[in-house]
Amino acid sequence: MSEMPIADWQGLAASKREANFKKIPEKWRLSESLTSQFAETSAISVIDVPATCGLLTPRELDLTSNHDATALVELMTSGKATSVEVTTAFCKRAAIAQQCVNCLTEIFFEEAIARARECDDYLRKNGRPMGPLHGLPISLKDSFNVRGTQATIGYISFLSRPPATSDSNLVTLLSDNGAVYYCKTNLPQTMMTADSHNNVFGRTLNPHNLSLTAGGSTGGEGALLAMRGSVLGLATDVAGSCRIPALCCGLTSFKPSAGRVPFGGGVPPGRLGSPGSIIPVIGPIGHSIRDAELTMRTICNSNTWVFDENVLGVPWRSVQLPTRPLRFGLIRGIPKRPLHPPIARGLHSCTTKLKSKGHQIILLDDKVPDIWDSAILAWKFFLLDPRKTPMSYLQQAGEPLVPSIGRTMVKELREFEPSLDGLWDMNLERFKILHAWHKVMVENELDAVLMPGNSATAVAHDTYGLTPFTVLQNLLNYPSGILPHLRAEEELDRQFFKRDAAYEPPYEPKTFEGLPAHVQVMGKPMQDEELMEILRVVEKTLAE
Amino acid sequence: MSEMPIADWQGLAASKREANFKKIPEKWRLSESLTSQFAETSAISVIDVPATCGLLTPRELDLTSNHDATALVELMTSGKATSVEVTTAFCKRAAIAQQCVNCLTEIFFEEAIARARECDDYLRKNGRPMGPLHGLPISLKDSFNVRGTQATIGYISFLSRPPATSDSNLVTLLSDNGAVYYCKTNLPQTMMTADSHNNVFGRTLNPHNLSLTAGGSTGGEGALLAMRGSVLGLATDVAGSCRIPALCCGLTSFKPSAGRVPFGGGVPPGRLGSPGSIIPVIGPIGHSIRDAELTMRTICNSNTWVFDENVLGVPWRSVQLPTRPLRFGLIRGIPKRPLHPPIARGLHSCTTKLKSKGHQIILLDDKVPDIWDSAILAWKFFLLDPRKTPMSYLQQAGEPLVPSIGRTMVKELREFEPSLDGLWDMNLERFKILHAWHKVMVENELDAVLMPGNSATAVAHDTYGLTPFTVLQNLLNYPSGILPHLRAEEELDRQFFKRDAAYEPPYEPKTFEGLPAHVQVMGKPMQDEELMEILRVVEKTLAE
Repeated sequence: MSEMPIADWQGLAASKREANFKKIPEKWRLSESLTSQFAETSAISVIDVPATCGLLTPRELDLTSNHDATALVELMTSGKATSVEVTTAFCKRAAIAQQCVNCLTEIFFEEAIARARECDDYLRKNGRPMGPLHGLPISLKDSFNVRGTQATIGYISFLSRPPATSDSNLVTLLSDNGAVYYCKTNLPQTMMTADSHNNVFGRTLNPHNLSLTAGGSTGGEGALLAMRGSVLGLATDVAGSCRIPALCCGLTSFKPSAGRVPFGGGVPPGRLGSPGSIIPVIGPIGHSIRDAELTMRTICNSNTWVFDENVLGVPWRSVQLPTRPLRFGLIRGIPKRPLHPPIARGLHSCTTKLKSKGHQIILLDDKVPDIWDSAILAWKFFLLDPRKTPMSYLQQAGEPLVPSIGRTMVKELREFEPSLDGLWDMNLERFKILHAWHKVMVENELDAVLMPGNSATAVAHDTYGLTPFTVLQNLLNYPSGILPHLRAEEELDRQFFKRDAAYEPPYEPKTFEGLPAHVQVMGKPMQDEELMEILRVVEKTLAE
Repeated sequence: MSEMPIADWQGLAASKREANFKKIPEKWRLSESLTSQFAETSAISVIDVPATCGLLTPRELDLTSNHDATALVELMTSGKATSVEVTTAFCKRAAIAQQCVNCLTEIFFEEAIARARECDDYLRKNGRPMGPLHGLPISLKDSFNVRGTQATIGYISFLSRPPATSDSNLVTLLSDNGAVYYCKTNLPQTMMTADSHNNVFGRTLNPHNLSLTAGGSTGGEGALLAMRGSVLGLATDVAGSCRIPALCCGLTSFKPSAGRVPFGGGVPPGRLGSPGSIIPVIGPIGHSIRDAELTMRTICNSNTWVFDENVLGVPWRSVQLPTRPLRFGLIRGIPKRPLHPPIARGLHSCTTKLKSKGHQIILLDDKVPDIWDSAILAWKFFLLDPRKTPMSYLQQAGEPLVPSIGRTMVKELREFEPSLDGLWDMNLERFKILHAWHKVMVENELDAVLMPGNSATAVAHDTYGLTPFTVLQNLLNYPSGILPHLRAEEELDRQFFKRDAAYEPPYEPKTFEGLPAHVQVMGKPMQDEELMEILRVVEKTLAE
């Protein structure tokens, strides 16, 4: 690849975006008068656009609005819907979402509908579904490889790369189980910020309020799913990338333990071969815990090692929770990141409901290692490449950094110089944190820990910063899930406001009004199955 | 700890050995006329000494000679033997072994017999055994911590350390399952050679021929088990340490996948926090595959994560092998290490027997990445500490290196300078090897791979060198087992002699006569259960 900067990288990126737009059939396009309102400075919600724009038939609206993935598979498997109609409906709605929030990177609707037809034919001919995901449209983060499509992951210098000649390992596995792929979704430059913004595809906006972030790094999925332009997405997660878009957009997500889900075969944003102790994972993001469980069970029971040499190959276990009350640890924020009132209220509501069901809550605030310090350590593991490969990708094209990257480079990290000797000490520091958490979990006989996934709801673009509440689970390699719960309501949130709290980013109740709040539920390592059952209990309790 | 060399380290070491010797009751001591024959230069076997020395009663001889661990537990659980008599018999026989082959580091026979009494009382009072290892004496490599005993691991500078105040995690776990500990066993200085030799305890000798190595790093176990001074031992393995003593001494051993067995709480020979990609494991070494399975099943089903924060916590699965013939890959040596005739004959005999049962053998010699190069890469992962901590431990005491360490420092390694940048490339090199092996295993639909664990039987002291055939499985993180098969017999081995082969170390048929040969059977990662079943099939086939 040339080391000469690309003279007109802006033009190259514009061509890519234009080629993308052309893949949206003209009859699926929104009016200019509508789309001209959609900008990253517009503090408006576009959540209702799919229902109000008139492009979707009532049947399409029903299929995309009122069912989770589990229900859709059931409809298709029992012949009450075809994959072609379900897939077409999601293609249309994804096209609408794209025009509202700029969430897509690659569009392959025609291939998807052809594949859906294959699924329908299979069912008709064989009298049985292709697999547990029969005919289901699934959206993918851009970093997945799908044969025949590009995976530029937002780097200008990757625009000259040819389309992928093979699928990511997980893409093949899910395809074998009946999945249908129809689009890939936006992410941040370098994949290491919580703003899905890059110089190729621009910025993905939050459907609940376009002036706020959709989260990252899987923000394209977050926005698309919130628009119900997808029912199930797949997200990587090394610092929260599967969970942050979920909590920003009001979705459910599940970050498994490392090695449960095949990771190989995608496009990395940096150098391969990291000696860091944090292993990236892939998890589902969508609308229900039963969908997350369907995804995990399907993956783990598919002979994963045959697909991927780095996977642990541990089958999904069927577990039953103890009949005794569950014991939840509780983390209510950290000194450097006090919880914004809607998040504090959501967490309080969650613990209150759980207690009313007889479950036990054990306060951990002072019992666990400093969560900010743990985040700094985690981030150092992400900065171990002496060649700074992601920066060299940017320099190759002469493209600038996106603004959000600067926000993660806090003082402790700006001074960090990676070294082999220092890496030994970093591992030792990680062992101490791991040991302390293990002690807390075992001694308190905890089943899980309730905590925020972020101190705030979705925040203004480029203000999310470090991700202490989500990178912790990557550092520990504990599985974790996000459940949406309540919404910011200034009136109700007021009692959780603390005058002397240094909210960071600032708490702006008017701006955040109506945005989804959430809880995070962290389980024990490799007990993904137990955590899934616990999430089911919490989800049900929150809904009551 | 002082940086001043210890003026009289030889004297300190002698005191430690003397204190050890005093823990052997006088009535369990061999005559001076006998022990004076036992030296590292004596090419004699001492295997028969326990039976001929007259110290063991017929009952003690029977208990220690004719049963594996599974059978002994059955005897004790059903009341046909007490733990006190079984433990006493093994304490006596271990004392005899120690006087023949210098295999022990710590002796705590009295505590063991008291603990055995506890087990017997428990059974009598409760009418049920303590656990699947009820009353079973188990020997431990010196690097395990056992409360109240030292763990010097052969470093002079560690002699000043106080006795351990806590147990290794696995020691606690097995104790909860009924195990009885009675001794710890010798290992090499730095734990990184195949000769169990250090300046504190001296050298462990091979019971089949004292002039040969017992292997390492768990050579004390190997020698003790071959003398039947133990029925089951526990060995760490990062380059073959659980398998090399087995193949040198004629034993069975099993190296599991990383993370199956709790590793924490022991004494490391070097710096903690290695960023290397090879994770040390612990496995059983003993007399039968069913004992290895008993050990693994008991461990994995004991809620391991509660004992150890770094374990994967994956329960032992009950598996059934396919009813079709098994498909074995076959590696018949590598250009740099042609197989000595007895090893080639053992491997040939094994494949012939398996084929006669209808199993399939697929030759892999040219299909897999260069095994010598893989070993060099693996060794580089062991040399990543810029502070060279093991060397600093030696310098603290002013003690010299043992000779065998120099044998592992081949040319490719003498030039190696670890660096952070280089570590990224090493990981990439490992990925390529992993990928190539995965492709071979999947495309050939292999159930396991047959190969040597070493190119030779036990060899002369300080000549074992690098361990390409055993470190491969650590680099790949594939489980692997050693089964003894045949013995060196010059007459029969002759047809496997190749005039132009550059045997390294040299092939000396007279010296190696009668020494055990072996086969190694490598499984697929995390399919420890499947490998165990395959080992059972191979063990049975070899016995027919």
